[in-house]
Amino acid sequence: MAGIAHVVSLRHLLVLSLALNVSLILRDINQNEKHQSGAPMAVHKGTKASQLRFLSFPSESAAAHETNPSVDEHGGQRVINLDHGDPTMYEQYWKAMGDKTTIVIPGWQSMSYFSAGKNLCWFLEPELATQIVRLHKVAGNAVTEGRHIVVGTGSSQLFLAALYALSPQDSSNPISVVSTAPYYSSYPLMTDCVKSGLHKWAGDAKQFDKDEPYIELVTSPNNPDGFIRHSVVNRTGGILIHDLAYYWPQYTPISAPSDYDLTMFTVSKSTGHAGTRIGWALVKDVEVAKRMVKFIELNTIGVSKDSQLRAAKVLEVVSDSSEQAGGSEYPESFFHFSHALMTERWRLLREAVKDSGLFSLPKFSPAHCSFFDNNLGTQPAFSWLRCDGDDVDDCESFFRGHKILVRGGKHFGVSPKYVRVSMLDREETYNLFIERLSQISS
Amino acid sequence: MAGIAHVVSLRHLLVLSLALNVSLILRDINQNEKHQSGAPMAVHKGTKASQLRFLSFPSESAAAHETNPSVDEHGGQRVINLDHGDPTMYEQYWKAMGDKTTIVIPGWQSMSYFSAGKNLCWFLEPELATQIVRLHKVAGNAVTEGRHIVVGTGSSQLFLAALYALSPQDSSNPISVVSTAPYYSSYPLMTDCVKSGLHKWAGDAKQFDKDEPYIELVTSPNNPDGFIRHSVVNRTGGILIHDLAYYWPQYTPISAPSDYDLTMFTVSKSTGHAGTRIGWALVKDVEVAKRMVKFIELNTIGVSKDSQLRAAKVLEVVSDSSEQAGGSEYPESFFHFSHALMTERWRLLREAVKDSGLFSLPKFSPAHCSFFDNNLGTQPAFSWLRCDGDDVDDCESFFRGHKILVRGGKHFGVSPKYVRVSMLDREETYNLFIERLSQISS
Repeated sequence: MAGIAHVVSLRHLLVLSLALNVSLILRDINQNEKHQSGAPMAVHKGTKASQLRFLSFPSESAAAHETNPSVDEHGGQRVINLDHGDPTMYEQYWKAMGDKTTIVIPGWQSMSYFSAGKNLCWFLEPELATQIVRLHKVAGNAVTEGRHIVVGTGSSQLFLAALYALSPQDSSNPISVVSTAPYYSSYPLMTDCVKSGLHKWAGDAKQFDKDEPYIELVTSPNNPDGFIRHSVVNRTGGILIHDLAYYWPQYTPISAPSDYDLTMFTVSKSTGHAGTRIGWALVKDVEVAKRMVKFIELNTIGVSKDSQLRAAKVLEVVSDSSEQAGGSEYPESFFHFSHALMTERWRLLREAVKDSGLFSLPKFSPAHCSFFDNNLGTQPAFSWLRCDGDDVDDCESFFRGHKILVRGGKHFGVSPKYVRVSMLDREETYNLFIERLSQISS
Repeated sequence: MAGIAHVVSLRHLLVLSLALNVSLILRDINQNEKHQSGAPMAVHKGTKASQLRFLSFPSESAAAHETNPSVDEHGGQRVINLDHGDPTMYEQYWKAMGDKTTIVIPGWQSMSYFSAGKNLCWFLEPELATQIVRLHKVAGNAVTEGRHIVVGTGSSQLFLAALYALSPQDSSNPISVVSTAPYYSSYPLMTDCVKSGLHKWAGDAKQFDKDEPYIELVTSPNNPDGFIRHSVVNRTGGILIHDLAYYWPQYTPISAPSDYDLTMFTVSKSTGHAGTRIGWALVKDVEVAKRMVKFIELNTIGVSKDSQLRAAKVLEVVSDSSEQAGGSEYPESFFHFSHALMTERWRLLREAVKDSGLFSLPKFSPAHCSFFDNNLGTQPAFSWLRCDGDDVDDCESFFRGHKILVRGGKHFGVSPKYVRVSMLDREETYNLFIERLSQISS
């Protein structure tokens, strides 16, 4: 794998970018394609963070605020919503890729509940399974040998399926589910959503001291703070679920292929296709895999075939772009592109935070990344900001006062002095956030 | 709406069918389209039940048994699986429709978690909402005015969302969930899947005599037996969920637009697209709708955009085909086609059952159908067979002995003398079933 420093060449990227634009426009004219809802193709509009990279395509919302994206429709300051981790940042790459990941589904295709093949997971599309195994090999982030693949409607459904599969069925008490704080804000809500008698949320893993079976969720890199995590409880009767949604080269150095009993991934955070709702689990124990399949059968009778086919195509192109990076088809791989974009975003953020003196950010040590074959920093999908001022107790409210929506620490089981900020929004939104953060400081 | 008797014209349909085939093949050659898993385009092979209708395309499984579809790969009698209601029968229509419902999704489209528009259901694609409203108007089977549309990953997820939304949140005891037997076999399993503290399965509605709040599921036409259903408990504190998955013109006369508090539909059974996993609920109470949305948010963070776009396109063509039936674009509407096919299948079944003297079937009275503007019979998506012989206690095992997989009465809360048989499989499977049923009788 070529070192990342060699890849960014201004001329190279501009030539590619223009060529892709011409091809996209020609394709558009030729096909007279009817663009559905979402982000229509639009004119080029260069902005700071992307000027060395692919030409940027402003989103539909940008088109609505043609003269000034920082104001709302009444001329007031526009609200910037970075509460969710909506990965629209990646649209830029996929637009530049043109029709490489376009899928065509005839009306009579994939009508059956069942997928072909003899997979234990009867609703898993074989092509998706193939591309999942391949991508993990390319990225070097997970062992797939000796694993059953279970596909889910996003990793949320897989998390619920895993809880169902791992909870004792015959116990009179629900099993405790724990995770080290700050933990993903949806874990408690999902675990207790229907007041299950199988499992119950038991809070911060560091505080868990009961001498009874438990399920520990290990999110690594962690949502919200980006740190690499390991299990902390380490007691008899403990069962681990590894949520590795962010264990991809653009966010964190890949140290070694993950090799756990039950590991979850999702396209939302790996390729940016949140709207397709596809995740997958790699499961060692066949009985656990079967029970997960049973849960998904009862929950949604399988997983959308259309989305599985689309996810398969996207993963295929991510692998192709890595294996053929530097060639005429793929001058730059998906991971190189997104790593460079995240590096730039984190540089801008650290600069703004440093200038302000009002906030602090986590510090990460560089580590060797096997994918890029280089010592690299960590640049998480979320920034985990702390409002340092003594007069600011509630950092979420503080940001809301500046019309920036973020998620406060209490949702993650920690102090409200912290907030989680999505780093994955469209460029214009991110730039506006940095601009506004700088204004707060001054 | 023209009467169904006027529609079937052999010459008309053959001309249409051949024209469509030529166009399909040309499209195929032109586009050099790579067919993904599923049913590849194949040569024409007429069979009895379809000879008056669209040319039939044998499925992939048929191709695997080129010489004799009734034998398995070892030369033994092939197992016929009619346990699930897999609606592959409809592939025939959608193949004949060519590229009318083909969708093209560029790699950068629908990446966000969010759908456009200001809908209460933030993950509902506006175009799907439009086509749902339109199709209900065309079919005349549901009032949509004053309703919120909630989209789900099939109607299974909507059922769970409805239970969550309608169960009291502050009660110390779970609310009872009942349905008149025979009831859909998945209801008890889904209701109690994670031993919820919000709701619990309480069995046959006819037996429910507790003086406490309850949720009654009304499936009409009913799965498994096809009868029109109304609520039976009728006590204070009762909450109704109407599952109208089969309330479409091909299965039952449409007497009037349904007009309930909470009604569920699904593409699986209306258009046959089970693999897309799209259902919708029409919900009167805004707070109930909001809670259903909350459930789906915690369960799967929304619903696949790709499948919603596909479902929107399919519903659009179903409406178009009804409104333009008899024209050059749509010589026959989707509902006419599928109604005629179901009529033929039920005729063959009743004939075989009558000849055998071993089984009995439900009897339905003809009723006026507003869609076809005609007095018509009922032809459910499942047949509900009774093994009449005194020596047959377990009808499911009896059929299994003849290598026919069906679902026994005990799953539906009634006697094992009954079985449910899917009427929606591909033609070759259905014909094989009728053939084998006739052999049992002799």
